[in-house]
Amino acid sequence: MHFSQALPLQSGAALQDYMLMYETYGTLNADKSNAVLVCHALNASHHVAGTYDGDPATAGWWDNMVGPGKPVDTDRFFVIGVNNLGSCFGSTGPMHLNPARGKPYGAAFPVVTVEDWVGAQARLADQLGIARFAAVMGGSLGGMQALAWSIMYPDRLRHCVVIASTSKLSAQNIAFNDVARQAILSDPDYRGGDFYEHGVVPKNGLRVARMVGHITYLSNDDMAEKFGRKLRDVASSDIGDYKFGFGVDFEIESYLRYQGDKFSAYFDANTYLLITKALDYFDPARAHGGDLTKALAGTTAKFFLASFTTDWRFSPERSREIVQALVSNRRQVTYAEIDAPHGHDAFLLEDPRYMNMVRAYYDQIWNDIGGAPNHAANHAVSNAVSKGKA
Amino acid sequence: MHFSQALPLQSGAALQDYMLMYETYGTLNADKSNAVLVCHALNASHHVAGTYDGDPATAGWWDNMVGPGKPVDTDRFFVIGVNNLGSCFGSTGPMHLNPARGKPYGAAFPVVTVEDWVGAQARLADQLGIARFAAVMGGSLGGMQALAWSIMYPDRLRHCVVIASTSKLSAQNIAFNDVARQAILSDPDYRGGDFYEHGVVPKNGLRVARMVGHITYLSNDDMAEKFGRKLRDVASSDIGDYKFGFGVDFEIESYLRYQGDKFSAYFDANTYLLITKALDYFDPARAHGGDLTKALAGTTAKFFLASFTTDWRFSPERSREIVQALVSNRRQVTYAEIDAPHGHDAFLLEDPRYMNMVRAYYDQIWNDIGGAPNHAANHAVSNAVSKGKA
Repeated sequence: MHFSQALPLQSGAALQDYMLMYETYGTLNADKSNAVLVCHALNASHHVAGTYDGDPATAGWWDNMVGPGKPVDTDRFFVIGVNNLGSCFGSTGPMHLNPARGKPYGAAFPVVTVEDWVGAQARLADQLGIARFAAVMGGSLGGMQALAWSIMYPDRLRHCVVIASTSKLSAQNIAFNDVARQAILSDPDYRGGDFYEHGVVPKNGLRVARMVGHITYLSNDDMAEKFGRKLRDVASSDIGDYKFGFGVDFEIESYLRYQGDKFSAYFDANTYLLITKALDYFDPARAHGGDLTKALAGTTAKFFLASFTTDWRFSPERSREIVQALVSNRRQVTYAEIDAPHGHDAFLLEDPRYMNMVRAYYDQIWNDIGGAPNHAANHAVSNAVSKGKA
Repeated sequence: MHFSQALPLQSGAALQDYMLMYETYGTLNADKSNAVLVCHALNASHHVAGTYDGDPATAGWWDNMVGPGKPVDTDRFFVIGVNNLGSCFGSTGPMHLNPARGKPYGAAFPVVTVEDWVGAQARLADQLGIARFAAVMGGSLGGMQALAWSIMYPDRLRHCVVIASTSKLSAQNIAFNDVARQAILSDPDYRGGDFYEHGVVPKNGLRVARMVGHITYLSNDDMAEKFGRKLRDVASSDIGDYKFGFGVDFEIESYLRYQGDKFSAYFDANTYLLITKALDYFDPARAHGGDLTKALAGTTAKFFLASFTTDWRFSPERSREIVQALVSNRRQVTYAEIDAPHGHDAFLLEDPRYMNMVRAYYDQIWNDIGGAPNHAANHAVSNAVSKGKA
């Protein structure tokens, strides 16, 4: 969708003209009460669920969560995925033409914040005629967007679903982001952000950025279990030999380098810089002297939060801070702390307890908007109650 | 000290000819029973204690631990610090002339292991006429060397002092090391390791390597306390402004970039690669089917181990594994788990409980070698007993 009305940004800059790429799933009902906005995290996009042309390799990033009969059931809900401004999957970003420059924005693309993204998403909702979402939902950076919706547009969402997220990055989180940024910025192929014109890509920087990021998405235990000290191309029954060089010895090296290479082949370096800055800057309590309770005082939504025990990037403690601030405001909150081994990445992975908790919550949302119960949904609720750990 | 007898290495290669830079403190007694070898970690050197020419800025890296009247009291002990092979502080390393090439070794310097270093240190001890050390001691990578001494030369040390160390790196530890290596190797100024000839230094790669390393040396809590989300150049009473760019916003960014810049100005890139490989490869249980108890079966030393509660690089659990394996072998072990906020770096920092524990242990070592007690030492023991948490 094209927008020709300028979008003022938190930085003071504005985007004069921009496109938002979005995808929808399911059918908007007559009173437009069944819309769910799903906000994406760092390297994801508007392509939340389903596949293109029946090609299973193109499954959306939250395909296990969103779809017919899935926890966010598109037989009930009209789900919208939007690619955020500054990203590299279709919405206006650094690789697009900057009309003022006559060449791509590059590093001149304005720094956008979580709140800027939410402002742009609200305009898209306006155009789609959605006055109030049944829910706004996201994990990690997506959860920050959902939280920002509850603060900026309290009347425009009934439910706010925040998974594996935080109300602000810690010094350690910012530190890892800055390592990633420095890796990109110091790659000579970054060319001050204008690498598009030179036909190069700062692959080495992006690769290192992704490697360090990836370490923070996995739990220490999970990495130990999956990789341990296993050597590459050596059966676990065999002791194998060290190579005594700087190539690959261990499986974990091979895995991370592969992840880094894959990422650097499709992700935009300027987008990576922008998105890490949006993460760093998010801090709704900042304007309230650091008091998150005050920052959330104007919210009216009902909340669902979930965190994962082995997530050391955004640990359960960070979700509990949000829960506490909401409870202090007497908001209705459901909180699930899920005992899962997969670290921060758990929010994207199949886990019956997690999926059943979300399914059960979406059954409540369905009730809230006056939807008719059905047998399958009731079954899921009882499942969640018996298996979930709240 | 120059060595002209070839040193065979674990990789199968050999160093034909090499120098070891070392420093000593205190006086070797008549029966040569009071020698203590202090092994250094990643970026340290033979310069363990004291200052050069009375310049306080040149204090050794463990100056709070080693010196007259200090926990490792050089009025009693003859302390030796040795710069390891491959390092960049005087011992033969990648920046020195490779006689076979007629130019510096560069990346052709053979990959050396903890065991290779210990072998070289043993030759130095031979030359100094030290048949048996009162103690071999180290923190982190230095602790690995002490542990290797206890396995390789059980009769050559009475005591083995292993602080904030581990018997092997985890997948996560290796992953962080490989990020650092990839940052260096992909810096165009690395020039395949031959940057010396080109008059350049892979500063950007070294800088990123140090930044990511430094994050793992600090505890999450300590970073939160020291830096939190404080903005650079903004008083903590002031909310300040975000800069909406990729420069420095937060204090933690400024601190890490400064650490990275400082490091890249004095440390050698090839040395960094070599030392991270020595860390990755160390795993004495490897030759025993992963059984650390078997690996330590031949040890005869008495052991002192210490770990720090907030160290997430080499957590207390890793020290406990060593303690358990030693106890299974019925070795005499003293273990201190010190409640300290400073993460892995705690082993280098002043902490009365930690220092008193080490002091008390060195009083025992002094007893063991038949030294005369004195009042100051007795005082320190009672201090340690009352304050230490074992």
